[in-house]
Amino acid sequence: MIRVGVVGIGYWGPNLVRNLYETDGVELVAVADRESDKVSKMTRRYPSVKGYNDGADVIADSSIDAIVIVTPAETHYAMAKTALEAGKHVLVEKPLTLLPEESLELTELADQKGLTLMVGHTFEYNPAVRRLKEIVQAEDFGKIRYIYCTRVNLGIFRHGINAMWNLAPHDLSILFYLLEEPPVAIRALGRSFIKPDVEDVVFLFLEFASGSMAHVHVSWLDPSKVRRVTVVGEKRMVVYDDLDSEQKLKLYDRGFESTLFEDGGILDYQVRLRGGDILAPKIENREPLRVECEHFIECVREGKPPLTGGRNGHRVVQALAAADESLRTGGGRIEI
Amino acid sequence: MIRVGVVGIGYWGPNLVRNLYETDGVELVAVADRESDKVSKMTRRYPSVKGYNDGADVIADSSIDAIVIVTPAETHYAMAKTALEAGKHVLVEKPLTLLPEESLELTELADQKGLTLMVGHTFEYNPAVRRLKEIVQAEDFGKIRYIYCTRVNLGIFRHGINAMWNLAPHDLSILFYLLEEPPVAIRALGRSFIKPDVEDVVFLFLEFASGSMAHVHVSWLDPSKVRRVTVVGEKRMVVYDDLDSEQKLKLYDRGFESTLFEDGGILDYQVRLRGGDILAPKIENREPLRVECEHFIECVREGKPPLTGGRNGHRVVQALAAADESLRTGGGRIEI
Amino acid sequence: MIRVGVVGIGYWGPNLVRNLYETDGVELVAVADRESDKVSKMTRRYPSVKGYNDGADVIADSSIDAIVIVTPAETHYAMAKTALEAGKHVLVEKPLTLLPEESLELTELADQKGLTLMVGHTFEYNPAVRRLKEIVQAEDFGKIRYIYCTRVNLGIFRHGINAMWNLAPHDLSILFYLLEEPPVAIRALGRSFIKPDVEDVVFLFLEFASGSMAHVHVSWLDPSKVRRVTVVGEKRMVVYDDLDSEQKLKLYDRGFESTLFEDGGILDYQVRLRGGDILAPKIENREPLRVECEHFIECVREGKPPLTGGRNGHRVVQALAAADESLRTGGGRIEI
Amino acid sequence: MIRVGVVGIGYWGPNLVRNLYETDGVELVAVADRESDKVSKMTRRYPSVKGYNDGADVIADSSIDAIVIVTPAETHYAMAKTALEAGKHVLVEKPLTLLPEESLELTELADQKGLTLMVGHTFEYNPAVRRLKEIVQAEDFGKIRYIYCTRVNLGIFRHGINAMWNLAPHDLSILFYLLEEPPVAIRALGRSFIKPDVEDVVFLFLEFASGSMAHVHVSWLDPSKVRRVTVVGEKRMVVYDDLDSEQKLKLYDRGFESTLFEDGGILDYQVRLRGGDILAPKIENREPLRVECEHFIECVREGKPPLTGGRNGHRVVQALAAADESLRTGGGRIEI
Repeated sequence: MIRVGVVGIGYWGPNLVRNLYETDGVELVAVADRESDKVSKMTRRYPSVKGYNDGADVIADSSIDAIVIVTPAETHYAMAKTALEAGKHVLVEKPLTLLPEESLELTELADQKGLTLMVGHTFEYNPAVRRLKEIVQAEDFGKIRYIYCTRVNLGIFRHGINAMWNLAPHDLSILFYLLEEPPVAIRALGRSFIKPDVEDVVFLFLEFASGSMAHVHVSWLDPSKVRRVTVVGEKRMVVYDDLDSEQKLKLYDRGFESTLFEDGGILDYQVRLRGGDILAPKIENREPLRVECEHFIECVREGKPPLTGGRNGHRVVQALAAADESLRTGGGRIEI
Repeated sequence: MIRVGVVGIGYWGPNLVRNLYETDGVELVAVADRESDKVSKMTRRYPSVKGYNDGADVIADSSIDAIVIVTPAETHYAMAKTALEAGKHVLVEKPLTLLPEESLELTELADQKGLTLMVGHTFEYNPAVRRLKEIVQAEDFGKIRYIYCTRVNLGIFRHGINAMWNLAPHDLSILFYLLEEPPVAIRALGRSFIKPDVEDVVFLFLEFASGSMAHVHVSWLDPSKVRRVTVVGEKRMVVYDDLDSEQKLKLYDRGFESTLFEDGGILDYQVRLRGGDILAPKIENREPLRVECEHFIECVREGKPPLTGGRNGHRVVQALAAADESLRTGGGRIEI
Repeated sequence: MIRVGVVGIGYWGPNLVRNLYETDGVELVAVADRESDKVSKMTRRYPSVKGYNDGADVIADSSIDAIVIVTPAETHYAMAKTALEAGKHVLVEKPLTLLPEESLELTELADQKGLTLMVGHTFEYNPAVRRLKEIVQAEDFGKIRYIYCTRVNLGIFRHGINAMWNLAPHDLSILFYLLEEPPVAIRALGRSFIKPDVEDVVFLFLEFASGSMAHVHVSWLDPSKVRRVTVVGEKRMVVYDDLDSEQKLKLYDRGFESTLFEDGGILDYQVRLRGGDILAPKIENREPLRVECEHFIECVREGKPPLTGGRNGHRVVQALAAADESLRTGGGRIEI
Repeated sequence: MIRVGVVGIGYWGPNLVRNLYETDGVELVAVADRESDKVSKMTRRYPSVKGYNDGADVIADSSIDAIVIVTPAETHYAMAKTALEAGKHVLVEKPLTLLPEESLELTELADQKGLTLMVGHTFEYNPAVRRLKEIVQAEDFGKIRYIYCTRVNLGIFRHGINAMWNLAPHDLSILFYLLEEPPVAIRALGRSFIKPDVEDVVFLFLEFASGSMAHVHVSWLDPSKVRRVTVVGEKRMVVYDDLDSEQKLKLYDRGFESTLFEDGGILDYQVRLRGGDILAPKIENREPLRVECEHFIECVREGKPPLTGGRNGHRVVQALAAADESLRTGGGRIEI
């Protein structure tokens, strides 16, 4: 039995509590939140679980093996550091930290201590995203030309971070998972319409050494909810729409074929459109957060490196920090 | 009767031929195209119309009052200039020209000669776009915060111009029509995946003096056809989806309300989400190209300045030229 | 505190358990199911709740005030009767019973004993259905001409009842709620493709004294899930699509206007189509089952008659029994 | 060259005129309509075509080989008979006639005279319907269990016929094309909401000797346009949505598998749900009416029996006549 404590049970925390509670091999020992009514709601639902108002009390509990941190982003670094120093395994919600030097420090600290440090990049545990990766890696897909992501809706306006830090970690983790390479440069353009200096709409543009490019549109200020990733390959194209319950993935057997030919001594390209079928593969119906929780517990138990470990989390923080710098220059190109 | 000749009957030209043929007050006298089979197909369908292989023959026909130019973009300037110099009124397909100095020259030439020069920014004649403008100008919409446009599909790969020059004129003309101001700066980021130096995917970012911003995504390399404009105002939001036959416009009575308040001597913003109804207003069912043709004929007959005259066309060419410059610098900010 | 026991925690029961557990004024005392692993899963999640393998043990618990019955339909009558006779208030999942004489007997028994008997016609507690009723009752909607309902998907194949008894209770309860009148005659046509004598596809046709009519299509054997109700009124039309997260209701300001006129001594009707806007009203975001649970507890506590009491449940069972008779005659018209 | 005349150029006629005009091997000689402005509009568009106000004049023109009849349904029989007697080949819009004895008489008359008689069941020339047939006939689809069709919208209110005679010919022709068998019995239930005795909403229920069944819902009184056919087979299911531009056909590799097993001496069925991929095959992009016109001309020229000849048209008229009889009895079962 891995004994676990959850710190932070605001919006997303209760989902982790529920999943951990029902994961085999886990004993959920304690939860903590500054808001007492949230704590009492949880302990009423799960009477065997202890409730605290201070995360430090959970970390101080020597019977606990692992800490799950679901507090606001600006507290991730200090909380995770304290937990690692106290010898606990740690699962932190995304983003891992707000500064790349912090995420690196945590990663190295976990390595030194031989502890599991994992970040909750939940889409890497999503069956649709895993199937998406199989599709884009197949030979008949061809090289990935570009990917664009749209993650917009109306609200929720988060405290402490802008829409990019709130939403883009998902897209960046998906991008890096699919492309298997870090970006070499990034641009970010955004606006703060609702609250000064808190960007609610951001467009990101990423360049990769392989020649692939990516575009990300995140927003808290959009009439409708969209969660969509489009991957355009040399031979096929695929759309992942997380809100489409029937066709989460649509694989289009379509594209252009261009042939170089000579016309009166001049080389030119003949471009031919190729249409084809659309395939919506069946996606296994598992809750990604459950897969994530089980993976965390397995890594803790067996000492395996997590799929979304510290270095994975660091890579995303690094890209976000570069994007932040670009935002401040009004869209300048920042090399990473 | 205004006597009209159409030069260029490739992909879009036949639509102009059909609409002009059926517009009251027009006598369609001649069509021209380099491809003889296209000409004979048209003259077979409309036996009263003369067919030529050279647009110059149509322009030279002294019985013709007005020339409609639907040839490839790189020929617009020379063809329109010749026609104006021959004393003909001119309707040119978008873009008006490929260089801003050319579009300005044509505009001034038409003014000097007292001739109508109009560019086929057909969306400004679209009943849905006109209704959209009424919506965003209404007081209960609030100031326009930002607009983003998506105009993507698979193909058609055009000769001579990239996807931006092919598709973005529509979005720019819609943007300037809605915002009633020119952009002050523009950035463009693109890639040429199919054919070297011909961008098939371009992202544009426009800044306006009023503080509004706009983003445009155009592509020839996308699995699905999308024609969508989203306008986010201070109080409401509206989506124009040209491919939605039932709800071309959706007006969302939704938004955020932020209030400045003092908390222990510190000023902060309280942000409150406001949900509301969605209204899809009935849109008059008229073919935009018919409205455009009728407007052109009316301007010719009555000497009225067209809604999409030379200056309107010039503004779009100017923005595209700035975007071109930005593309060549890999996304640098170009002031206009 | 109303002390409640839940009998049956298979597919739907856990939702009632969760909602009752979190409803103010309720103490969830016990759950029962023949399958021990289901019981232990629930008691693990809610350690304060006692678990039994036999519903009779829950009914026998004299500390319990109310029994919620979520067992297979064929057991509803006996279970509810035992519970009422033991002096318990009862909430039964739909359908109330399988025979109209049984549902009548239960209703009368509850009346005699002064106990609350309620059936879980959950859609009558659904905010969208309540808004739908406001819409169709408004004067500008006109008289309801007809309603058609589609409730189809692939599976779940239930034991003991056919697709009509499984799915149509929802549609019938919605129909009677909207129309406020019982049907005068009913026809049912069905087929048993998967299992002999268990209809998996059924079409119902209902006539009402007011002249309104209704059609219901239920199926377990359909490629896609559909949950849709269309109401056509004299002046407007409205569609309720339970699976559309953004536009659950769409009110169409459309219809025909017919005018009687005389043409050369012959009376004829001139029919004119009237198009108009579509309005998707904002729907309050409350879980219908929560509203239902709260309503049940309120009725128990205050002795109020429930919105979906025994007579309401009886009306639905009566219609289903008539439909069954029609099914057996291959679609004959059965008067009620 | 086959010399053709078109009688009736109201709503649908101009589409036939356009297609015939552009079909190779056809010379469109004349059009006729009672409304002079419609005639002059056509002759203005096609100046080589003669215009008449009376169809009889077109039939009387001895230079004409074939007559295309697009007049109101009640005139089909007399017009087609006159044309056949005058030795013309005939293409009649659906329904072929209003009475089965009439359609039989025309069929026999055409046979005697050795003339082509064809009915415009245009969906049998639709590439999506042809692909649909290939799908449902493939071995991996299994036997067709049932088909249901929805063909509803708001308007157009036709003169002389009800919604069933207006819309259901399409569905019946598709059903008989797919099933390759005539129905053995039919029921029809309808209502006349707008105009007395003119059903604007009709539900049809068809039984086939093979055990397959079909349901058809047609209506002029519906908020939205729907054109959908769902075919449920033993092993797969397929949906044909004519209004879905991207996925006209969706083939679901889904179904139930039921196995008979013995449990303590009792035989029972174990039912297992099988989920799978969805495939939207690429559909050839040809206008069905063009295919139909070319087929008619080919049959005339080569004396081939048409795919939708007199007997095909008769079968549909026979089913509609039986449905009419059922409508008059309020839904009684009529054997054919």
